[in-house]
Amino acid sequence: MSLNMIDIITKKRDGGKLTNEEIQFFVNGYTDESIPDYQASALLMAIFLKHMDEEETLQLTQAMRDSGDVVDLSRVSGIKVDKHSTGGIGDKITLVAGPLAAACGVPIAKMSGRGLGFTGGTIDKLESIPGFQTTLEPDDFFKQVDELGIAIIGQSGHIAPADKKIYALRDVTATVGNLSLISSSIMSKKLAAGSDAIVLDVKCGKGAFMENEDDAAKLAETMCKIGNSAGKRTIAVLTDMNQPLGHAVGNSIEVIEAIECLKGTGPDDVLTLSLYLAGLMVYLGGKAESLEEGEKLAKEALDSGTALSVFRRLITSQEGNPRVVDDYSLMPRPAHQADLILNKEVLSGSKFVCGEADVADTSKVYYIAEIDNQRVGIASQHTGAGRAVKDEPIDPSAGIIVHKKIGDAVKMGDVLATFYGNDEAKVANALQEAMHIYTLSEAPVEAPLLIKRTIE
Amino acid sequence: MSLNMIDIITKKRDGGKLTNEEIQFFVNGYTDESIPDYQASALLMAIFLKHMDEEETLQLTQAMRDSGDVVDLSRVSGIKVDKHSTGGIGDKITLVAGPLAAACGVPIAKMSGRGLGFTGGTIDKLESIPGFQTTLEPDDFFKQVDELGIAIIGQSGHIAPADKKIYALRDVTATVGNLSLISSSIMSKKLAAGSDAIVLDVKCGKGAFMENEDDAAKLAETMCKIGNSAGKRTIAVLTDMNQPLGHAVGNSIEVIEAIECLKGTGPDDVLTLSLYLAGLMVYLGGKAESLEEGEKLAKEALDSGTALSVFRRLITSQEGNPRVVDDYSLMPRPAHQADLILNKEVLSGSKFVCGEADVADTSKVYYIAEIDNQRVGIASQHTGAGRAVKDEPIDPSAGIIVHKKIGDAVKMGDVLATFYGNDEAKVANALQEAMHIYTLSEAPVEAPLLIKRTIE
Repeated sequence: MSLNMIDIITKKRDGGKLTNEEIQFFVNGYTDESIPDYQASALLMAIFLKHMDEEETLQLTQAMRDSGDVVDLSRVSGIKVDKHSTGGIGDKITLVAGPLAAACGVPIAKMSGRGLGFTGGTIDKLESIPGFQTTLEPDDFFKQVDELGIAIIGQSGHIAPADKKIYALRDVTATVGNLSLISSSIMSKKLAAGSDAIVLDVKCGKGAFMENEDDAAKLAETMCKIGNSAGKRTIAVLTDMNQPLGHAVGNSIEVIEAIECLKGTGPDDVLTLSLYLAGLMVYLGGKAESLEEGEKLAKEALDSGTALSVFRRLITSQEGNPRVVDDYSLMPRPAHQADLILNKEVLSGSKFVCGEADVADTSKVYYIAEIDNQRVGIASQHTGAGRAVKDEPIDPSAGIIVHKKIGDAVKMGDVLATFYGNDEAKVANALQEAMHIYTLSEAPVEAPLLIKRTIE
Repeated sequence: MSLNMIDIITKKRDGGKLTNEEIQFFVNGYTDESIPDYQASALLMAIFLKHMDEEETLQLTQAMRDSGDVVDLSRVSGIKVDKHSTGGIGDKITLVAGPLAAACGVPIAKMSGRGLGFTGGTIDKLESIPGFQTTLEPDDFFKQVDELGIAIIGQSGHIAPADKKIYALRDVTATVGNLSLISSSIMSKKLAAGSDAIVLDVKCGKGAFMENEDDAAKLAETMCKIGNSAGKRTIAVLTDMNQPLGHAVGNSIEVIEAIECLKGTGPDDVLTLSLYLAGLMVYLGGKAESLEEGEKLAKEALDSGTALSVFRRLITSQEGNPRVVDDYSLMPRPAHQADLILNKEVLSGSKFVCGEADVADTSKVYYIAEIDNQRVGIASQHTGAGRAVKDEPIDPSAGIIVHKKIGDAVKMGDVLATFYGNDEAKVANALQEAMHIYTLSEAPVEAPLLIKRTIE
């Protein structure tokens, strides 16, 4: 019997399990436009509400993977390891962990996306380095990975086109937040990207897609199952996203912070997480017997300066100016900046988890209890660092330096955060919006645990 | 805050209750095409799976009613009563009950639809009468109802256009079978049609939308609540649709059967149900104190020939040839016919609920236990009596006379049914398809109860 979309929607609507043939019929038909949007969205809502099991989720992922190019990295020797983050604020980990893992001999053939939202993606960040090219011919890409151990380019438009179409539809039909749909979307692209093993950084907290740790763990487990079932060794790490990673949120300023980390002088959280994820990559890449040994090797690559040198060569090889590593003034600099200062207005409008504001006492010490991370992201976008719609130009110099983070002690007159950008009005506007991102406490507060769990 | 479709979909997806404003936003936006199909279908699937309560269902109905013309029948004096059937095979009741109620002084200003499916609709049936016009100018329509007591015309394209669009979308997105969506679709058109009271004939059984009596009762209750809440006295009757109504299934042949009923000589089931529904119409129209009295008055209008005379004048007034009432040969006649005979082939392939076929014994008596009513409908469509797609021409002469019905005794050589039409191949094909519509029994079988329940 020939398949038809109404039967497939009906089956899922009534809680049935779709066969591989039915899933492929949907994915292929929607990609080649023989299935209209309105039938796809009805099916997606039925999937959202009636769920897919593990087998269906794997089949959906594989069908979306096979809807476009599947990169063949067999020409590159060694176990290629990919790394993916579900997305967070100030997440420049790829720029640090990538060179660390490559310095330990793990081939990194990375295709990254552009950002839509709070800041640019890895590709936008790299493009803030003067001259840096994120498009390479396949041959040059393979050659660079072989010779240098690392290449980072923009994701081709023909990787998992089904996912691209389905994601765009989910975005406008309230069918984003479903475990199977999220997992298959991420994993279809990872499976198509051709690496042999995958390290997933699954964020949880206020600035992440999954606020709750249990939900994030379920997402991590589902993605690991997909990856492992599809023949790619996959490990996920649950990490905190209740505040920005590091201090820099933007593009050029995140690259500078990543370089600081590769010099060993960057913020602790970025360094710690980069070493941990690089350790996992080194382990999965077969260059260490255990995660611990992987982390140790990554630390050695950091301390010896090899990782920094890999990053420098990466820039050179992709036509960027490698002198930015030593002279940050060569990076795009913003024309304007504005400080968020703990003054009377900010203090008296602040939320407290314990105690209250005393604007008369200028020596009183408060502790940062919470950061409205979502709002930090929105403010960052409004400085010009992120795009609201596809293909919008971004301001590489724009963004926020978040000086004070959870647990930090502050008092009147302290600079909490600094806003940057080339458009003065945007910078002022972003600052205005971010006036109350901080929740304070009179009692000391502990910083949230950065690395929560590793899931295989 | 301004409304947007993603929030509305999200709310219903999560089981929330939509406000009247949200429902109107959806209905108006979908009608004026500011809301795309894919968002509407996602919402419809969320409604299908998460349901609407009574209040939401009423608001949806009213929003769809108000999306187009709402007929003003105030120029016609008296309590105007509408009648609607959820659709069945061989359902020519409007052609009998309408003239009966009109003969009792109840003004019938009826707008009917064309059929899509097994046979034509009431309008197609009437158009099989040579010359009959189903389009009248509003003034002529009102005048005819005032003078003659009845007019039956085609439903204007601008009655509940939102329902038309939403129904078409539901049809291709597996979101038809939901109580709120079905009820609001039917009732939006009834409320817009301008009558003061409504009699609903809700079918249940194998040839009906609702197979199960409980489901049909729920549908009836929901529609009555909508009608009564919207200020139209509404009563529903649950009636059997496990076999065709009467014997004739088609267009011209159904008109002839309706005329036979108005002469008092038609099949019992059509007569009984027509008198019952006409009785309800007379009661709701304020011309009787009770249903019983209404039925008695309808019977008098039948016996005295007044109802037949009303039908004759209805034909004349709408430019049809009234002589068809006395001379059926003036109706379209089919060029071809073929009998379904209980022969060896049919008998040996028949299903039995009790006992078995004995093809050697030609005098053995069997009883009709079940009729595959759905298949009767499909075969009828295939004779040419119904359309598969909108605007397809139909063959007014085509159809089926179902001679043997549930409970009837049959033996070898009996003609079970006759197939008619102008296309010989279609007639033969329909007969072939309908070879096994009958399930037999060796033990006597009781006919199903025709009128099951009245719901107010």
